[in-house]
Amino acid sequence: MKTAELDTPVLTVDADALDRNIARMKDMTETAGISYRPHAKTHKSATVARKQIDAGAIGVCCAKLGEAEVLASEGIDNILITTPVVGESKISRLLAARNQARVAVVADNVENINMLGSIAQLAGKMLDVLVEVDIGQGRCGVPPGPEAARLAQMIAGHPCLNFAGLQGYQGKIQMTVDPAERAAQTETGLDKLAATISEVENAGLPVDIRTGGGTGTAPFDLDRGLLTEIQTGSYVFMDSRYGGIGWPGANAPPFENALFILTAVVSKPVPDRVIIDAGLKSASNDHGVPAVVGIKGCVFEFGGDEHGILRMKDGGEVPLDVGDKLQLVPSHCDTTINLYDQYIVLKDNKVVDVWPVDTRGRVQ
Amino acid sequence: MKTAELDTPVLTVDADALDRNIARMKDMTETAGISYRPHAKTHKSATVARKQIDAGAIGVCCAKLGEAEVLASEGIDNILITTPVVGESKISRLLAARNQARVAVVADNVENINMLGSIAQLAGKMLDVLVEVDIGQGRCGVPPGPEAARLAQMIAGHPCLNFAGLQGYQGKIQMTVDPAERAAQTETGLDKLAATISEVENAGLPVDIRTGGGTGTAPFDLDRGLLTEIQTGSYVFMDSRYGGIGWPGANAPPFENALFILTAVVSKPVPDRVIIDAGLKSASNDHGVPAVVGIKGCVFEFGGDEHGILRMKDGGEVPLDVGDKLQLVPSHCDTTINLYDQYIVLKDNKVVDVWPVDTRGRVQ
Repeated sequence: MKTAELDTPVLTVDADALDRNIARMKDMTETAGISYRPHAKTHKSATVARKQIDAGAIGVCCAKLGEAEVLASEGIDNILITTPVVGESKISRLLAARNQARVAVVADNVENINMLGSIAQLAGKMLDVLVEVDIGQGRCGVPPGPEAARLAQMIAGHPCLNFAGLQGYQGKIQMTVDPAERAAQTETGLDKLAATISEVENAGLPVDIRTGGGTGTAPFDLDRGLLTEIQTGSYVFMDSRYGGIGWPGANAPPFENALFILTAVVSKPVPDRVIIDAGLKSASNDHGVPAVVGIKGCVFEFGGDEHGILRMKDGGEVPLDVGDKLQLVPSHCDTTINLYDQYIVLKDNKVVDVWPVDTRGRVQ
Repeated sequence: MKTAELDTPVLTVDADALDRNIARMKDMTETAGISYRPHAKTHKSATVARKQIDAGAIGVCCAKLGEAEVLASEGIDNILITTPVVGESKISRLLAARNQARVAVVADNVENINMLGSIAQLAGKMLDVLVEVDIGQGRCGVPPGPEAARLAQMIAGHPCLNFAGLQGYQGKIQMTVDPAERAAQTETGLDKLAATISEVENAGLPVDIRTGGGTGTAPFDLDRGLLTEIQTGSYVFMDSRYGGIGWPGANAPPFENALFILTAVVSKPVPDRVIIDAGLKSASNDHGVPAVVGIKGCVFEFGGDEHGILRMKDGGEVPLDVGDKLQLVPSHCDTTINLYDQYIVLKDNKVVDVWPVDTRGRVQ
C-alpha cells in the first residue's frame, strides 16, 4: 500500500530516518564513552526500544510504572523508572514487574523509601533505587547537597534496597535555542550534580549510576563526562521545535524528522483557507502547532478537536484542494504519539510495517 | 472498591451528577419544543449515548466517521456526522455504517457531493446529506446565502442523495463569559442561518433539519426557535472553563461537574511545591489548566507529560503530603477523555461500574 492510499489522519514513521537517528546517537555516546539509556516515554514502543538496544543501548528509561510493566512484558530488560513510584499498590506492582525484567526506580522521599524497603522485604526481593536530585528542573527531586546523601544512606542501609546512583535531569533547558547558553545551563546543572555526588561519596557510598541528559543538551552532557549514561528520548523522531535550536558547529541538531501526521483536506470554503482532518485529537499543542511539510509559507492553526486550518502567511490562495493529502511534523512527539494506537511504518512511501504504540495511555 | 483505593491518575465519573445534567438538558429542550441531539464527541461512550437517548434525545452527533462506526456497531441509531466525510475509502465506509444505523452527513463542496452521490448509487443506497453553512466559526461550511441553495439543489437532484437540511454551528462563542454578549453573538449567527434557510426554501426545497447550538449558547438557541435540534455536548460533564461563564439569570450554567481526574502526590521536595502524577498525558491543556478540587487557593501548573505541580497562590505550604489523593476538574473534557481507555464510575465515592471510552482515538 502506498502512503497516498492511507485513510487520514494517521501517524507515520520514516523507517530509514529513524534508523539513521538511532545510529547517530549510538555513535555520539560511543565516541564519548558514556552509556546510552534512551527514554521510552517518547516512542512508547517495544519495537523501537529493541532497535535502540540492538544499537548498543544498555536498556531504557520509562516515565511511569505502567510503561515499564508493558515493556518488561515485551522482553525489554534493564529499565529505569525516572519518577517516584508511590503507594502500596504501585510498589507491589513494581516488584512484580521485576519478575520479568531488571527494573530500577528513583526516589526523593523518606516515607516512600521506607515503603519501598518494607514491600521489597515482604516480597523477598532486592530493589535498585536511585536518588533523584533537582538540578534545576523544579519538579521532583531533593535539593542538591546533604539531603541526597541522607537518602542514599537510608537506601544503602536497608537489607532489601540497593543504592544504585543519582539522577539529575533538566527538561526545560533542552530547547534553549542558543547552543552557548544551553551549554552554560547544562554546566550549572551538572555542577550541582557533581557537588551532590561528592556529598554521597564523602558519606562512603559509591555513585555507580549518574543518569540524566536529554536530546538538546546531549553534546554538552557527553563532553562534560560526569554522567555515566544519558537519557535522550526525542532524538529518535525529532519534534518540529527541536529543528529550531542551534547545535555546536551547526544550525540544527544532527537528527532528522522521522515522525509525521498524514492528513487530508476536507473543506476549502474560501480560497485563502483550507480545513484538514487533524486537530487537537491528532496533534498535541503543548509545544505549539505542528509544522506543514512541503508548502512554503503555509501555517497551521488548530481548528478544534478534529480539524486544523491552513493559511498562507501572505494571505494568498492555499495551493491545496479537497481530498489532497499532506504531512505535518508534530511539535511534540511524546504527547502526539500518545494520541494514537499505532505507527504506520513507511519506506520509500510504501507501508512496510505497523507497530503498536505499546505504552499509549499507561499513565499509572 | 472505594475511590481512595484506585491507582492514579484515573478518569472518574460522578454517576448521579451525570444523570442530573442529562435530565436538565432534556427538560430545557422539551420546554422549548426543540429536539435534542447531543454531541457524542464529548463523551465518546455508547453507554452515555444510550442514557441520553433514554432521556429523549433523537440520536447523537459524531465529529468523525470513525466515531459513528463504533457507535453504530454499539446499537446507537440516528447519527449525524457534523463534518465532511471526504474521499472514496471513507465514503464507502460511511455507506457500510448505514447497514447498522441511520447515519447522515454534512457537506460543503461540489466534488464531495458528487462523490457521495456516485458511491451511494454504486452501493444502491440513499444517503441523507445536510449542507454546512459557516455562520461565524470560520472553519468548514459554505458562506451564508445562495451557495448553500446551489449545493442543496445538487443534493436534492441526485437520485441517491436526500437533502436533509442545514447545519450552522459556532463553537468559538460557547464560552463568551457575558451572557448578553453571548446572546448577541448567537443572534448574529442565527440571522445568517435564517437568511440561508430562506434562500434554500425560495429554491423550492424544505429545510427539515436545522441543526446547531452548543452548551453555552443553548438558552439563546432554544429561545430563538430557529433550530429544529440542538447539538449540545459539554453539558454532560462540564469543563472547568464553562463554570466561569454567566447564564441568563444566574452566575453559572445549571450543570454540574461530573468528570474528574483522581491524582496522587508523588513528591514534595520543598513545602511550597507538591508534584502530582497527572500531566499532559492525563489532562488536556487546550483550554488551560485543570482546576484543583477542595483546596482553596491551590493552583495547578503542567510539569511535563506525566506530572503536575501544585502551589498555593499565597506562596504558603501546600496542605498535602506524598501519597495523598485529590481530584481535578478537566479544563476541556472532550480532549481529556480522549487520553483514557475507560471511565471509572462512582456513586457515593464507591466504584459502581467501568465504561469503555468507545471512540477514543477514532479520528479517521
